[in-house]
Amino acid sequence: MRITVLGAGLVGGAMVRDLCREDEFEVRAVDRDPVALDELADEESLERVCADLGDSGRTTELVGDSDLVICGVPGCMGFHTLREVIEAGRNVVDISFFPEDAFELDESAKARSVTAVVDCGVAPGLSNIIAGHVHRRFDKTDSYACYVGGLPVTRRRPFEYKAVFSPADVLEEYTRPARLVEHGREVVRPALSEVEQLDLPGVDTLEAFNSDGLRSLIRTMDIPFMKEKTLRYPGHAELMRTLRDSGFFSGEALEVEGRMVRPLALTSRLLFDRWKMEEGDEDFTLMHVEMEGREGARRLRYRCTLLDNFDRERGVTSMARTTGYTCTIVARQVARGLFAEKGICPPEFLGRTEGCFEDLKRGYAERGIGLEETFEQLPAG
Amino acid sequence: MRITVLGAGLVGGAMVRDLCREDEFEVRAVDRDPVALDELADEESLERVCADLGDSGRTTELVGDSDLVICGVPGCMGFHTLREVIEAGRNVVDISFFPEDAFELDESAKARSVTAVVDCGVAPGLSNIIAGHVHRRFDKTDSYACYVGGLPVTRRRPFEYKAVFSPADVLEEYTRPARLVEHGREVVRPALSEVEQLDLPGVDTLEAFNSDGLRSLIRTMDIPFMKEKTLRYPGHAELMRTLRDSGFFSGEALEVEGRMVRPLALTSRLLFDRWKMEEGDEDFTLMHVEMEGREGARRLRYRCTLLDNFDRERGVTSMARTTGYTCTIVARQVARGLFAEKGICPPEFLGRTEGCFEDLKRGYAERGIGLEETFEQLPAG
Repeated sequence: MRITVLGAGLVGGAMVRDLCREDEFEVRAVDRDPVALDELADEESLERVCADLGDSGRTTELVGDSDLVICGVPGCMGFHTLREVIEAGRNVVDISFFPEDAFELDESAKARSVTAVVDCGVAPGLSNIIAGHVHRRFDKTDSYACYVGGLPVTRRRPFEYKAVFSPADVLEEYTRPARLVEHGREVVRPALSEVEQLDLPGVDTLEAFNSDGLRSLIRTMDIPFMKEKTLRYPGHAELMRTLRDSGFFSGEALEVEGRMVRPLALTSRLLFDRWKMEEGDEDFTLMHVEMEGREGARRLRYRCTLLDNFDRERGVTSMARTTGYTCTIVARQVARGLFAEKGICPPEFLGRTEGCFEDLKRGYAERGIGLEETFEQLPAG
Repeated sequence: MRITVLGAGLVGGAMVRDLCREDEFEVRAVDRDPVALDELADEESLERVCADLGDSGRTTELVGDSDLVICGVPGCMGFHTLREVIEAGRNVVDISFFPEDAFELDESAKARSVTAVVDCGVAPGLSNIIAGHVHRRFDKTDSYACYVGGLPVTRRRPFEYKAVFSPADVLEEYTRPARLVEHGREVVRPALSEVEQLDLPGVDTLEAFNSDGLRSLIRTMDIPFMKEKTLRYPGHAELMRTLRDSGFFSGEALEVEGRMVRPLALTSRLLFDRWKMEEGDEDFTLMHVEMEGREGARRLRYRCTLLDNFDRERGVTSMARTTGYTCTIVARQVARGLFAEKGICPPEFLGRTEGCFEDLKRGYAERGIGLEETFEQLPAG
C-alpha cells in the first residue's frame, strides 16, 4: 500500500517515520525544502520527492498512484491541495488546518467515493473524536468544553511560551474572535477573554482563555454549550491583551517616521525571535475535555486528559507527536477500512464510528502518549 | 522687576500665573505656540510674545531687559537657550532638564556674575535641595535615596500610567542605564532594574525601580551611597521590561515588509496615545527622600515626603504645580538675593544655603503642596 505524505516538516517528518515503521506501507515524502527531506535520509525504504505543490498539476501527478494521502502543508495552501487530492480520487487525512470551509469539497469527495478526514490533529482532531464518541454514548449531551495548549517545559519570563507551531497562527489565535455555543446559539467573544486559572493533574497551574477552536463542531454537533479555551502559563493572556489592546497586533498600517508600517508585522518580527524553540528546548502538550450529559435518568460527567512530553530519544516535539501520530493512526484506520465514510469527514465522524476511538487509544499507548478518562455520576438535577 | 518666562506650555503657564500674582513683577511669557499664549490671555498685566527661540538671536533680544529669566523650553533646546541667557548676562532659573553638562557654562556665568540655577523642578530640583540641606546639617552623610513619580489617580489596566510630561522622556527613563553611587563609586545598572514594592503613607502600594535621575548629585555630593528610583503602580516595570527586552524600545531600524522601521518609533506612536492625559484625568506627585548620617556620635535618619494633588479649581496638573512652583519660589529667592551664588548652580547649592529650604517650604505651604519631614535617631553602629 502506497502512502504519500505532502509536507515533511516538523510534523510531516514525524509522521513519515511513524509510517515507515510498518512494512506494509510504501511511503513517499514530498516537500519543497530539500533540507527537510535530507533529515529523513536514514529511512531507507522512503521515497523522497522535492517538489513545490504550488506548481500547477504537481499534486495530482504525485498522488496519482497512492492508496492514501496525508496532507500536512501550510494552512494557506491546504484547501487548494486537498481539492486536488480529492479530484484525483484519493483517500486523504488532512492536518493543514486551513481557514476555508472544507464542506465545500464534500460533494466532490462523495461523487468520487473519497474518504477525506480533515482537521485530524489534537485540537482540532482528538478533541472532535472525543466529542463524537461521548455524544454517541450519551442519550443527550449538555455541554462540551476543551482546554488545550502546547507549552515549553521550562518557564522563562516574561512570555513563558515557545511557539510549537507557526507563530503567525499563534498571534491569529490571540486576535480572531472566538465562536462558542451557549443555550444552543453561536456567540462570539473576544480572543483572550474569560481568563480562568486551572489546576490539572501533573502540571503547574495554568490559565485558559477563549480562542476560536471549535471549527466543525459548531456545525455538526447538537450540544447546547460548547467552548474551546487555550492553555498558557498564568499571565500570558494579560501580556497578549496588553499588546493587542495597545495596537501592536493591528494589521492596519500606521505612518511611522514617514513610512507606512503594519504594527502586527513588526510585532511578529520581534516576538517570533523570542518564541522560537531552541536546541535543548522541550515542550509538552495538554488537552483536557469535559462533557456532561444524560444516560436515561443518570447525569454523567466525562473527563479526558491527554498529557504528552517531548521525545528526547528521537528529538521530536510533543506537538509533532500528538498532532502527527493522531493523523497517522487515523490514516491506518482509513487504510484498513475501519473508517470508510465517504465525503468530508471532520474527526467527530470517526469518534461516532464503532471502534475508532478505542483503536486510537491503543495507538497512543503504543507511542507513549498518556490519555486518562473518567466517567462520574452527578447528582440528579 | 521684569521676569521673562521662556516656554509657556503646561508647566510654563502655571509658572506665569504664579508670578503674575505678585505686583512687584512685570511678567513676560514667550512661546512659539499662539494657542499656549491665548490660554494666558486673562492675565491682564502679562506681556505675551509669540516667538521661536530657535531663531538666531531671538533669545538674546527677548531677555535683554529682564532682571530674571525662567527657562522652561523643551530639553532638546535647553542647553543652547541657557547659554544665550547667560551670555546676555541675565540671572536664570532653568527647568528644561537638558541632557548636556550644564557646568560647561560655569565659567561663562561666573565671568558675567550670573546666577544660573539649573534642574530646578521636583526631582531633579527639590530632591537636590534636600540633599544639600541635610548634608550640611549632618557631620557625615552615609546615604541618600530618592523615590519619585507622577501618577494618575485613577488606575486603568494594563499600564496604570499617564504621562505627565513628555512621553518620549518617559520611554528614555525606561531605557537609559541608571547611574548610582555605591561605596563611593559610580555604578551603572539597567533601567527598570531592582524593582521593589513600597508602602508610603496616603497612597496605594507602589513599586520603585532604578532610573537615571541623580544627575549633578553624582558630581557635587560626597555621599558614598546614592540612588534614585522611579515610582509606578505595581506591574508597570515588568510590562515595560517585557517591551524593552522584546525589542520594542530599540532605536535600531529593522526590515519589516520591505521597509526599515525603528521599533521605538512605532511603540512611541502606539503608547503615547494610551498615555495621554485626557479631560478629567487627575494626577498626583509623590517624592520620598531618605538620608542617613551622623551628628557627633548620633546616627540619624531623615525622611521627607512630598505629596501633591491635581488642582481642580485651576485645572493644573500636580506635575506642573510641583515642578513649576519649585522653580518660581526659587526664582523669587534669586530675585530678592536670598540666593546669590554665581555660576552654574544645581539646586543642592541652594539647599546648603542658609534659609533657602525654609523659604521653599513656606512657598509650598502657601500653594497647598504637602511636605512632611522627620528626623529619627538610629541605634549606634
